Amino acid sequence: MAGNSFGEIFRITTFGESHGKAIGVVIDGCPSGLTIDAGLIQHELDRRKPGQSAITTQRKESDTFEILSGVFEGKTVGSPIAVVIKNEDQKSDDYAHLKDAYRPSHADYTYEMKYGIRDHRGGGRSSARETAARVIAGAFAKQFIQHSGIEISAYVSAVGNLRLGKNYNELDLSKTDDNIVRCPDADIAEKMIALIQDTRAKGDTVGGVITCVIKGCPTGLGEPVFDKLHADLGKAMLSINAVHGFEYGSGFAGTQKYGSENNDAFYATSDNRIETKTNSSGGIQGGISNGMDIYFNVAFKPVATIMQSQTSVDKEGNEIELKGKGRHDPCVVPRAVPIVEAMAALVIADHLLRNRTIQL
Amino acid sequence: MAGNSFGEIFRITTFGESHGKAIGVVIDGCPSGLTIDAGLIQHELDRRKPGQSAITTQRKESDTFEILSGVFEGKTVGSPIAVVIKNEDQKSDDYAHLKDAYRPSHADYTYEMKYGIRDHRGGGRSSARETAARVIAGAFAKQFIQHSGIEISAYVSAVGNLRLGKNYNELDLSKTDDNIVRCPDADIAEKMIALIQDTRAKGDTVGGVITCVIKGCPTGLGEPVFDKLHADLGKAMLSINAVHGFEYGSGFAGTQKYGSENNDAFYATSDNRIETKTNSSGGIQGGISNGMDIYFNVAFKPVATIMQSQTSVDKEGNEIELKGKGRHDPCVVPRAVPIVEAMAALVIADHLLRNRTIQL
Amino acid sequence: MAGNSFGEIFRITTFGESHGKAIGVVIDGCPSGLTIDAGLIQHELDRRKPGQSAITTQRKESDTFEILSGVFEGKTVGSPIAVVIKNEDQKSDDYAHLKDAYRPSHADYTYEMKYGIRDHRGGGRSSARETAARVIAGAFAKQFIQHSGIEISAYVSAVGNLRLGKNYNELDLSKTDDNIVRCPDADIAEKMIALIQDTRAKGDTVGGVITCVIKGCPTGLGEPVFDKLHADLGKAMLSINAVHGFEYGSGFAGTQKYGSENNDAFYATSDNRIETKTNSSGGIQGGISNGMDIYFNVAFKPVATIMQSQTSVDKEGNEIELKGKGRHDPCVVPRAVPIVEAMAALVIADHLLRNRTIQL
Amino acid sequence: MAGNSFGEIFRITTFGESHGKAIGVVIDGCPSGLTIDAGLIQHELDRRKPGQSAITTQRKESDTFEILSGVFEGKTVGSPIAVVIKNEDQKSDDYAHLKDAYRPSHADYTYEMKYGIRDHRGGGRSSARETAARVIAGAFAKQFIQHSGIEISAYVSAVGNLRLGKNYNELDLSKTDDNIVRCPDADIAEKMIALIQDTRAKGDTVGGVITCVIKGCPTGLGEPVFDKLHADLGKAMLSINAVHGFEYGSGFAGTQKYGSENNDAFYATSDNRIETKTNSSGGIQGGISNGMDIYFNVAFKPVATIMQSQTSVDKEGNEIELKGKGRHDPCVVPRAVPIVEAMAALVIADHLLRNRTIQL
Repeated sequence: MAGNSFGEIFRITTFGESHGKAIGVVIDGCPSGLTIDAGLIQHELDRRKPGQSAITTQRKESDTFEILSGVFEGKTVGSPIAVVIKNEDQKSDDYAHLKDAYRPSHADYTYEMKYGIRDHRGGGRSSARETAARVIAGAFAKQFIQHSGIEISAYVSAVGNLRLGKNYNELDLSKTDDNIVRCPDADIAEKMIALIQDTRAKGDTVGGVITCVIKGCPTGLGEPVFDKLHADLGKAMLSINAVHGFEYGSGFAGTQKYGSENNDAFYATSDNRIETKTNSSGGIQGGISNGMDIYFNVAFKPVATIMQSQTSVDKEGNEIELKGKGRHDPCVVPRAVPIVEAMAALVIADHLLRNRTIQL
Repeated sequence: MAGNSFGEIFRITTFGESHGKAIGVVIDGCPSGLTIDAGLIQHELDRRKPGQSAITTQRKESDTFEILSGVFEGKTVGSPIAVVIKNEDQKSDDYAHLKDAYRPSHADYTYEMKYGIRDHRGGGRSSARETAARVIAGAFAKQFIQHSGIEISAYVSAVGNLRLGKNYNELDLSKTDDNIVRCPDADIAEKMIALIQDTRAKGDTVGGVITCVIKGCPTGLGEPVFDKLHADLGKAMLSINAVHGFEYGSGFAGTQKYGSENNDAFYATSDNRIETKTNSSGGIQGGISNGMDIYFNVAFKPVATIMQSQTSVDKEGNEIELKGKGRHDPCVVPRAVPIVEAMAALVIADHLLRNRTIQL
Repeated sequence: MAGNSFGEIFRITTFGESHGKAIGVVIDGCPSGLTIDAGLIQHELDRRKPGQSAITTQRKESDTFEILSGVFEGKTVGSPIAVVIKNEDQKSDDYAHLKDAYRPSHADYTYEMKYGIRDHRGGGRSSARETAARVIAGAFAKQFIQHSGIEISAYVSAVGNLRLGKNYNELDLSKTDDNIVRCPDADIAEKMIALIQDTRAKGDTVGGVITCVIKGCPTGLGEPVFDKLHADLGKAMLSINAVHGFEYGSGFAGTQKYGSENNDAFYATSDNRIETKTNSSGGIQGGISNGMDIYFNVAFKPVATIMQSQTSVDKEGNEIELKGKGRHDPCVVPRAVPIVEAMAALVIADHLLRNRTIQL
Repeated sequence: MAGNSFGEIFRITTFGESHGKAIGVVIDGCPSGLTIDAGLIQHELDRRKPGQSAITTQRKESDTFEILSGVFEGKTVGSPIAVVIKNEDQKSDDYAHLKDAYRPSHADYTYEMKYGIRDHRGGGRSSARETAARVIAGAFAKQFIQHSGIEISAYVSAVGNLRLGKNYNELDLSKTDDNIVRCPDADIAEKMIALIQDTRAKGDTVGGVITCVIKGCPTGLGEPVFDKLHADLGKAMLSINAVHGFEYGSGFAGTQKYGSENNDAFYATSDNRIETKTNSSGGIQGGISNGMDIYFNVAFKPVATIMQSQTSVDKEGNEIELKGKGRHDPCVVPRAVPIVEAMAALVIADHLLRNRTIQL
């Protein structure tokens, strides 16, 4: 109800403010008997963490997690899994000047209106630091869905007006992490990095697009009416900070097509599996996975905090001038790749479990 | 869990197959004391119904609704509101030849895989007829949110490659229903109608885009983390048949922008309300409404049923040839306008009620 | 949220007022592929219906149900199952004099306070007629759980101060429906019937107790902390009109025992199954079924409507005198037996499905 | 779904095993702007904690809590409130001999059957230590409902066959904590204490009853059909370890009454409030609070761990002999008083918030 939980059966609840004592997550409904590799969790956190490369914020955050419950002798036991990350060395004083200010395109104003009170330090609950909790939960979900042979791969497909211009199946997705922008095409990656560095030099920020591919998903996932698989994926992505759009399969481009162009013809493979010749459906038909690759795009707006002077107002409506201090991301998409994967994994894990209850 | 319900407090559950005895909806959580205008419900259903114009399917469906409960002497009493529409004169025999066939880009195959059993007549539960139940529920939601001064207006902004090319605030949205394609710009509307008729003549179908605007929404709606207002709107739209994309505010175009271009500066109006000079945020910041207009685009793929011959397979994997029979929509967007509005109204109604529980 | 739904996966939503157009239920989450015997549904409804014997109300209600959706060619297809019963020949005028009156120990006053508006005819939504919808849903649940070999048997174990005085395993539960009071001991049944007839002759009503036994329940049902199996059974029973108490296993009597008396020792059967020698635990340990019989008692207060004159107040607080008119039950327990079974079946069905999602 | 959450709007999720790193709770949906008194939380924890008196277990547990999020400068901010208690100095080795044993009337066997894996140390997740998390959450709920003038008082009304024998309104409930057994009648309390000490001397345990009274509850709380206020209270109580029964108002005794005895006549007070002359209804009619005192009884079985030798089986079905080691409670009710109050407070807090959404 208060919006801090996600999923029906594989269900997570995140908590924590940017500059409070800790952030964390409770995962309820993770099946028992799953062997947990703590190294994989840390690996995912490291892909998300600030200060990881020349094109991210240089801020350092403690991203050392601690599992408090639900895992015994390396395996899940079916009880809720609580994981926390302590917040260390937060420079809360850096934010004192923002106590009464509403930063443009941030959540300061809307939180104040909604709650009548606000932890202004570093954005409080609205900080993207909350996504670290999602990445932890997603690492559990990934380990669960791998038992069903499902693999999720996201990558940066656009930064500003630089578009990758290739379909996912023309790319070698194992190369995504070979460069710091997380674009599997080395040539475009280099240009993207240059664009981000140039943007930072101007004290500005820039948007981008992440594409995500889910391979090995069995048929039958997704509920047919409101909880269509793509509707839940869409909500998952739109719940990530800065996301302003989602499309799957033929997406917005498909609106310009004719049915005769867009339809996916079924055929039987030589080993008598049923597949489609094309995949405008993005692996989902009637809201339910059909066994083909699932793929979708996620649109990120440019980061709101810029190093240029902007006008705004304070609580009393007085005009003020603001200028970003400290260390911020010039472009969020390189660090958002593991977040997109985590949210996708959570959706798939949940629907895998939901699908166990369908037939007699 | 089984995906036939939507909303947390203002919660609906739809039921019914295309060619079963009836379809319907139960609305639970509609506040008591609301005067219901049955004429408004019928008006919305009429905007959605088949056979309404030269560019929709010529199929006739009974769209006469009956309220079974929850309304007493014209007012809601706080108990669940059940509404049904009987299915009459369904030509189920028309579908006998599809019993074992998987139509391309339909849900036949995925339903069979998921449930192991399928009501093949007219798509069964996957039929767009289910959206009539949403329109009824949305008509209740609209009447509720109008008490808070909120108005929702959707319109067709693209058909195939014909784009409207104007922002919503350059249009007179009261003119949307003046033409059969539901585009408020008469010139473009004429071209869209011609394109649809041309498409139908070729036995084909074409996609399109619907834009929706929500005016008068108070600040504070939306929950900050997973149930962001735009995430719930996105899920609502993506749950509509044939939708493949959603974007709000600056959307996909905003990914190409710099922060300095995209940010919305706050200022105080002469009567000391706080507003933003621009509205890239689409009326939502940090997932919470900020009092500005909310607007978003919804991408519809072309209808899957075409009057041209297509190859497919049957249950056994044998290659078959299929050709659409009967009467189908060449383009779904004109009839989808009230569905988009209904789903938006349901999201707003739910968040209005959720927001009553936030502060001490 | 508004309290008209029950269950997490096997989830029902009931609707309808006593004197509205219809009552009904939507069952969402019933697994696909279940063969439905309509005769069994009618049989359960007939056990609940008014006018069935000399000791129930002589009121006649239409209890002819119609399945609107979710069942195709005799089998469930996985979509929501909507079932309605039309309300016929309601004598709404009988209730005109109650429009502004608050009947003692009824819900008139509390509904008025909660909603600010009330359908006063026959108790509206608070009428026990709503339980017919539960019995229908329970009949689906019973058919589902029989596939797992689970059988539910309830019977009347007390009427007023007449107690049956035998444990369930000293009784032949197949004889419950052999008499009109639904007590499997013929001698006590006769006395109970006489007590009820005597009570009715005095224009009064009397309370009673129903005992319910669930046999064949597999180990592992129930969630360990808040959704303990007995907690969900308890809520289910307490949600039935007129129920004021619930106890399972050793119950209230067990509070007087020592641990050494109350504990159930485990042993291995000759075919190496693990059982307990005694069953104070009532088949549930730590909230989870242990494979032994589950049994519990449900306390029903005397029916509030009596044929004697009572004082009360109207909306304005004026003192009024009320006397029951028409035809009412002198004791609710004989007709409540199928309701208790229905609610138990719904809980077990739901937990059977929930339990499918627990292990890797 | 996995049963570790409770409440719809004021919703808690508890986590943690008895001998893991920590236990804790996330409270989501606590309204913003509530001033939190940490001393009150500690006070409630101290009432529950082991080792508090001569008649409880002498085990020492760390019950020092830490608030990780959701409270800023002493006030709730509307974000989830995470609170943890570290587990210190657990003697896990004490439990090594129980790794493969199923203790009688414990949850060892059912957890093993359900999950296929088990943290056997101190009962793991099934330990009553989990209730400390509920007491913390309840302390937040109490502070919230006090703003509406609601007060909750529980006390011990029976230990073994020693019954208090007085109605709550014949007692001075402010004296409950004056003695270590938490019975407000000093004479009976003394006898209860003697009975518990005698029971412990025999290496045995004994059951008991807690009565709870809620004063100042406004009219209108509770949802009418499945989420009746007493049904939610019943479930809350039945979810507490060792509880086997719940009754409210006239309860089981009321089943022996006639309607003419049991009905509560309405009257208007001199200041024109509507009240009832008697209160068999226990302050709830039709599932909704009527403004009178709410009261109910909760039945606790004797603690399963006794200091006498018992036979049982191990995983392989071999007969074993077990004898309780270490320090355990001879009677749970004195320490369960704050747990009953906490669960009652959580139910009332949730329904207070739910009730805000009912009327137009």
